[in-house]
Amino acid sequence: MFQDFKVTARPEQGPARLAKLRAAMAQSGLDGFFVPRADAHQGEYVADCDDRLAWLTGFTGSAGFCVALKGIAGVFVDGRYRTQVKDQVADCYTPVDWPEVQAGPWLLEQLSAGKIGFDPRLYTVGQIAAIETALDGSEITLVPCDNLVDQVWDDRPNAPSEPVVVQPLEFAGEGHVDKRARLGETLAEAGHAAAVITLPDEICWLLNIRGADIARNPLAQGFAVLHADSRVDLWMGPDKLAGLEDHFGEGITVHPQDQFWDRVADILQKMRAPVRLDKDSVPMAVQQALDAADIETTFGPAPCALPKARKNATEIVGMKQAHLRDGAAMVSFLSWFEAQDKTALSEIDLVTQLENARRATGALLEISFDTIAGSGPNGAIMHYRVTDDTNRMLQNGDLIVLDSGGQYQDGTTDITRTLSVGEVDDEARRAFTRVLQGMIAVSKLCWPTGLAGSHLEAAGRAPLWHAGQDFDHGLGHGVGAYLCVHEGPQRLSRAGHVPLEAGMILSNEPGYYRPGAFGIRIENLVVVQDAPQGQDADAHRAMLQFDMLTFVPIEADLIVTDMLSPAEIDWIDAYHATCRNVLRARLAPEAQIWLDRATVPL
Amino acid sequence: MFQDFKVTARPEQGPARLAKLRAAMAQSGLDGFFVPRADAHQGEYVADCDDRLAWLTGFTGSAGFCVALKGIAGVFVDGRYRTQVKDQVADCYTPVDWPEVQAGPWLLEQLSAGKIGFDPRLYTVGQIAAIETALDGSEITLVPCDNLVDQVWDDRPNAPSEPVVVQPLEFAGEGHVDKRARLGETLAEAGHAAAVITLPDEICWLLNIRGADIARNPLAQGFAVLHADSRVDLWMGPDKLAGLEDHFGEGITVHPQDQFWDRVADILQKMRAPVRLDKDSVPMAVQQALDAADIETTFGPAPCALPKARKNATEIVGMKQAHLRDGAAMVSFLSWFEAQDKTALSEIDLVTQLENARRATGALLEISFDTIAGSGPNGAIMHYRVTDDTNRMLQNGDLIVLDSGGQYQDGTTDITRTLSVGEVDDEARRAFTRVLQGMIAVSKLCWPTGLAGSHLEAAGRAPLWHAGQDFDHGLGHGVGAYLCVHEGPQRLSRAGHVPLEAGMILSNEPGYYRPGAFGIRIENLVVVQDAPQGQDADAHRAMLQFDMLTFVPIEADLIVTDMLSPAEIDWIDAYHATCRNVLRARLAPEAQIWLDRATVPL
Repeated sequence: MFQDFKVTARPEQGPARLAKLRAAMAQSGLDGFFVPRADAHQGEYVADCDDRLAWLTGFTGSAGFCVALKGIAGVFVDGRYRTQVKDQVADCYTPVDWPEVQAGPWLLEQLSAGKIGFDPRLYTVGQIAAIETALDGSEITLVPCDNLVDQVWDDRPNAPSEPVVVQPLEFAGEGHVDKRARLGETLAEAGHAAAVITLPDEICWLLNIRGADIARNPLAQGFAVLHADSRVDLWMGPDKLAGLEDHFGEGITVHPQDQFWDRVADILQKMRAPVRLDKDSVPMAVQQALDAADIETTFGPAPCALPKARKNATEIVGMKQAHLRDGAAMVSFLSWFEAQDKTALSEIDLVTQLENARRATGALLEISFDTIAGSGPNGAIMHYRVTDDTNRMLQNGDLIVLDSGGQYQDGTTDITRTLSVGEVDDEARRAFTRVLQGMIAVSKLCWPTGLAGSHLEAAGRAPLWHAGQDFDHGLGHGVGAYLCVHEGPQRLSRAGHVPLEAGMILSNEPGYYRPGAFGIRIENLVVVQDAPQGQDADAHRAMLQFDMLTFVPIEADLIVTDMLSPAEIDWIDAYHATCRNVLRARLAPEAQIWLDRATVPL
Repeated sequence: MFQDFKVTARPEQGPARLAKLRAAMAQSGLDGFFVPRADAHQGEYVADCDDRLAWLTGFTGSAGFCVALKGIAGVFVDGRYRTQVKDQVADCYTPVDWPEVQAGPWLLEQLSAGKIGFDPRLYTVGQIAAIETALDGSEITLVPCDNLVDQVWDDRPNAPSEPVVVQPLEFAGEGHVDKRARLGETLAEAGHAAAVITLPDEICWLLNIRGADIARNPLAQGFAVLHADSRVDLWMGPDKLAGLEDHFGEGITVHPQDQFWDRVADILQKMRAPVRLDKDSVPMAVQQALDAADIETTFGPAPCALPKARKNATEIVGMKQAHLRDGAAMVSFLSWFEAQDKTALSEIDLVTQLENARRATGALLEISFDTIAGSGPNGAIMHYRVTDDTNRMLQNGDLIVLDSGGQYQDGTTDITRTLSVGEVDDEARRAFTRVLQGMIAVSKLCWPTGLAGSHLEAAGRAPLWHAGQDFDHGLGHGVGAYLCVHEGPQRLSRAGHVPLEAGMILSNEPGYYRPGAFGIRIENLVVVQDAPQGQDADAHRAMLQFDMLTFVPIEADLIVTDMLSPAEIDWIDAYHATCRNVLRARLAPEAQIWLDRATVPL
């Protein structure tokens, strides 16, 4: 099993560790210290050695930070984690509602003056600038310093160093020589000599490699500089790169990973043009090192971000293959589920059986995130992770939010279906139907080029809005091709300001949550593609639409058919017919029978 | 008649006037000079004495500017005016596609160095800052100076000074004493001593007055300072304020209008807190005057903008009354139109008859803008103004975009209907039906508080998008209550970033334009209101919806009924039933017959 169910929160260790941190603060002459969840790579998952926030506070969410002062220690968590944080941290920590309350204003409330330390390897230039703007005119200053948590963390694990493998051309679709040349040219055109890249998924995409340094994402950690002439300096391993010499060939110079901070300025000496830094990902320590060496820098977009997000034809074919394989595994699971005495099953039983169904494909390399299997009231916890403590037996009338995905060499999947146990009440079925209507509306969207997710996401919410309902998470996130299941910059949310382009892959996942009662979510992945020109089309307008990646039947029992328009019913029937056509031959006989029944027209 | 059909463009005068301006530039040691369309009040309409752009270049559009250099004079106009500008300006002027090309980058292309003059009374701080940012690092500088156009404009008209009248409480709904106290408090809470107000609609709203200084908008021009203690210094008239002493009472100090620039700093001396300036409306000359007098200023929102946009219950009742009156006039017109030999009518005949129908209400104080009556290919010119030169006889198969409105003491209207002559081809009817579907979708919207126009406007375009079509203007603009027919900050467009709030009035006006062939637009006004909580609603979610203001039948002949969903057909039938119910008693018998026929269920 990839997934485990250990209770990882240890609130009882928090007070002693906070006391140690405060002693280190005192010794350094600091009045406070920032402990972010992020590592130097700003990813969603961190290695054990970088999980400083969990080690210190006990809080295990995927985003947040602690600001430890002498008299108070605030743990800043967002809406997903308001309940969880209270269970996971000791009384010496004070949960703070973030991002409603930001670090700067909170500091101004707590202190009239003081020096607050932070590790500049763990904070981007943009993050620090935002806090400093809020503190402007006050007597509170931010001070870059060594990491005080690392000083007091006695049994800190070693940094990960898992073997790196090649992502072959048959899945990557473009060689790293071509990628480096293409992206180098964009740097040259912008008048930049080089760009610093600190996001592992960008480095892995650029060099067509994959790794296993952190859970769930096939990433090799490291740092890189891409030069305008297409050369790359790579700080990675070097042990974990054994056997990659032929793949890398000329043009990629490998340096020991731990020398990045000290050596990056040497590599960038004597450039004739500025070095580009992405202010939202590059650590402040990089800027400091280059400033100290008098190297001219400029802010600009991460050179790999958009090229990586625009999947090429090979990657899209791979994603489609992965989704058919993964869809067949989902159907096998759903067929198994229907045959069980459901009230004898627990949430962990579902997670285990589903991971087994994916393993049975013989192609599963990892799960793409910890499966969310939230039954009854647990379904209303949007990022629920079942543990031995929270595990719940299914009950009649339950809805179950089952959100899961797999990492395959040809692609990454992410799918949510909402299962039911026995008869579900009408209110929940009405909400399910509205969520489905939103999912359908987004699937059918067609729009002119240039629009971003923020312009489109209302379509996925409007049916809920008409009933006075909504959900408090984004409609959709970007997804990588055998990379991170959450990738930017594309997103379908109010915060999505990057225009959608052909090849971008996104989730379409409206939901509805009634705290303490039930949760609903339906999620498919889609890929943006050019829309064909119809009879009446304006010849000069380029339009985009979504192509469907995910094919798994949607629970017909939960649909209130009377609420659907004829066009919505047609959409469901056509979607189910496609599910039958593309999955049937991949299934065992009993799953075929289930599929036939699950895809009968409404 | 309010509207006239004179040809106002005089391209032949452009070269001589440009030569005079260039001579003045040379005398002042300048390499260029900015001539904006805007006056000191940044409004859409300007008085004759402020119409410098039209005087100089011949271009009469409602937005744009000229940058006159020694060797080239660029006339910057937006997408609405690309065709018009070519007809209106002489060869010595070079049309520039704005906002795609901005003034700063254009200057960098034309010049390597130089001093470009501008009149700081006609430019806001924000506008100049944007140009200066683009010029940063170059040898081109912007220089505030006297207005060179005014120096060479020999027969420049006098400034307008029309009598100001009281807008009574029965229409305003809140006395100016209360408004001043309420808004003064918001200044005090923000820690500001006062705010400078230079937008006439804000001053008129705040003091419950109306004027007639410029066409189409019932505005009195002037300048004001609102103090945190609710006092107002008003630079207006004073001749035009005769008889208003009782209305103003205590707390409003009147100064001669022409002393504003010299006296505003005196009034704001010795404040104990900063003075608020809205950087998008206050002229740079104000900031300069206050800086020179060492008065502390700060940027902040215009204090009247949102309070004015959130109409009170009295204003909404007035707007509803005005719309019923105006709707009856529209129906009278439409009934007349149907009885005519249409191919014997010209566009000017339609404009004249429609203004007469509005005048027949006995309540029309002005038209709210020049009626757009674009038949056949003229309908594709979004802001078409018919002149004696362009006037076109209606032809069989024509669509006619008829966009018009009235100013009444209780409210401002703005409505577009698309008429037809004889049989219209199917392609145009399909496009009309999609425009209608967008209009219906917006009318039915319901959404959580906090959303802005940019999040919602896709609903009005989606039916067109599905056919590969779209339109190149915003979906809707804010509308004032017996004030400007175009008012901010609320808007239904991609540029609308202000959350919509109860009481805001907006237009809902999707369209479709096929250049050289035809145009389509359907426009109703709506007011934002709280949505009632339905059976399944989340108790904690406040939702908003639109309440309809405009009731005039929509051309059923142009609808392809087969394209509509049952819900859309229900909406049309219900809308038409309401039109019949609310308008019938206001109509003459022949118009009643027309109304009954026009509102038969689909």
